[in-house]
Amino acid sequence: MSDLPASISIKEEGPREGFQIEKKAIPTEQKIRLVDALSDTGLDYIQVTSFVHLEKVPGMADAEAVVAGMTPRPGVRYAGLWLNQRGLERAIATGRLYLEGKLTLYASDAFLKKNQNRTPDQQLAAQPELIRMYQAHGIPVRTGFVTAAFGCNFEGDVEPSRVVDLVAQMRSVARDMGEDLSLIGLGDTMAWATPERIRRVVGMVRDANPDVELSLHLHDTRGLGLANAYAGLQMGVRHFDAAVAGLGGCPFAAHAGAAGNICTEDFVLMCEEMGVATGVDLEKLIDCARLAEEIVGHPLPGKVKAGGSLSALRRRLS
Amino acid sequence: MSDLPASISIKEEGPREGFQIEKKAIPTEQKIRLVDALSDTGLDYIQVTSFVHLEKVPGMADAEAVVAGMTPRPGVRYAGLWLNQRGLERAIATGRLYLEGKLTLYASDAFLKKNQNRTPDQQLAAQPELIRMYQAHGIPVRTGFVTAAFGCNFEGDVEPSRVVDLVAQMRSVARDMGEDLSLIGLGDTMAWATPERIRRVVGMVRDANPDVELSLHLHDTRGLGLANAYAGLQMGVRHFDAAVAGLGGCPFAAHAGAAGNICTEDFVLMCEEMGVATGVDLEKLIDCARLAEEIVGHPLPGKVKAGGSLSALRRRLS
Repeated sequence: MSDLPASISIKEEGPREGFQIEKKAIPTEQKIRLVDALSDTGLDYIQVTSFVHLEKVPGMADAEAVVAGMTPRPGVRYAGLWLNQRGLERAIATGRLYLEGKLTLYASDAFLKKNQNRTPDQQLAAQPELIRMYQAHGIPVRTGFVTAAFGCNFEGDVEPSRVVDLVAQMRSVARDMGEDLSLIGLGDTMAWATPERIRRVVGMVRDANPDVELSLHLHDTRGLGLANAYAGLQMGVRHFDAAVAGLGGCPFAAHAGAAGNICTEDFVLMCEEMGVATGVDLEKLIDCARLAEEIVGHPLPGKVKAGGSLSALRRRLS
Repeated sequence: MSDLPASISIKEEGPREGFQIEKKAIPTEQKIRLVDALSDTGLDYIQVTSFVHLEKVPGMADAEAVVAGMTPRPGVRYAGLWLNQRGLERAIATGRLYLEGKLTLYASDAFLKKNQNRTPDQQLAAQPELIRMYQAHGIPVRTGFVTAAFGCNFEGDVEPSRVVDLVAQMRSVARDMGEDLSLIGLGDTMAWATPERIRRVVGMVRDANPDVELSLHLHDTRGLGLANAYAGLQMGVRHFDAAVAGLGGCPFAAHAGAAGNICTEDFVLMCEEMGVATGVDLEKLIDCARLAEEIVGHPLPGKVKAGGSLSALRRRLS
């Protein structure tokens, strides 16, 4: 048998990832309803919204209202996403969010150019200012994230050594400013990973950084999300991002471009059935997945919400 | 790195698995069109239809017409499914099908009772007659299959030792009648498998039967299909059943009960990207998946048909 971790931790990104891409407006009270339902599942980290440009992402214009309207549950960290100082300040102003500093580097130069119009050198040079921004607000910087760590639609395959280099650069910049990155996230942003590539990249990053925890952010665009997650578990990864019901992706052809995170409840079922504790009540999470589908009004990719859990079947039989 | 097989072989079951469950009638010429398109992908085994009771499965009433209408390609084995002597005789009468004898035992007593109204003893006692039926037609019996080998909705978990026992029984009955089972298939009929359960059951069956090839028939009802297939590859399994586009399953809630096989093109992408040769032209197979979706007229579960292949992206970039 492989030696899987005894327990893992999941960052739920559904409310943020999912509602952002919906074409129709999702009422604020429906967003709050899903966040509150997720709070009751045992998930201890929920990314609830984005503090981004109101005109560019109109679906997130109610970020403050969502945070103000939710009922925080003790022990749950409610997080937000921001892309600049203005966004961070809006998140701080809510007074209700778990705030953490995060550095992000792109492993694909082409994607970096396309998305941020920066070179790798410019990207690296921008990090100290970001760290200073967090330090000015007393927010520790503990996480580093590598985007497109397994490949890129605009550049092709990404050399694992490039990822190892980027992690070293991030850690060095942070260390120079008195911060210690203790969690390194690897993002399969455009779904280029396979289980073997996960094993290879995770293995190399871990060998070079035995003192940090690793995290995987996996997209399921090509259907390999859970196979990749399993490979991560085999490599001892204990932190995963996921989205309830697979929010953020959609099996409809019309939404073909949408590449959701791995589906939280499908992943929880896989973990729990293999003896990897997630701390999540799967039946309550399945209810959340059905609620998410009801809210967006179209089928979402997760399968367990239709297929049902094995533990429920066992209970019925016993 | 794990030691995956250098190559595998895939039994394409889409045309049979998929069209059977569709509520609307699929025109015979559309079925033929898909079979002919699949013939051109490099797949060398295609299960084209079922010779089952015309009134019970009206969607398969055109079995003979599909077989007569297809254009066989040299090197491709075209197979059918039958459940009794009448079905076998219909398959033989077409004169165009690859005929193989297969024994099937249920690992779940409850499912056996429900489906066939038989006890395990009665099930075993029925095998010699089946072998005699094949022998009377000069058809070798080479395959044994265990249904519900990983768990069952009507019985719960299935002990791996039960699967090992059933394989021993099948092989013994076959041997007594001069037949040698060289391929043992394990079916996750109701999607109870996890990657770790695959490793455990496959490991035990292989240890007890080092002289046979193993095959996996995996349903994706709970989203773990490809993760389970990856675990099978890690255990050295070289034979897999799959269905183009995930035919036989559907992401629509209305089809929630439908549990498709793993999706052929998603599986081929995973294998080829990991250096496991399938002999299949992925781009042509993706075209077949889109054709299958067009034919059934609703979204099918496969993801690569929307997400696209990585090799196509690489070619565009080079």
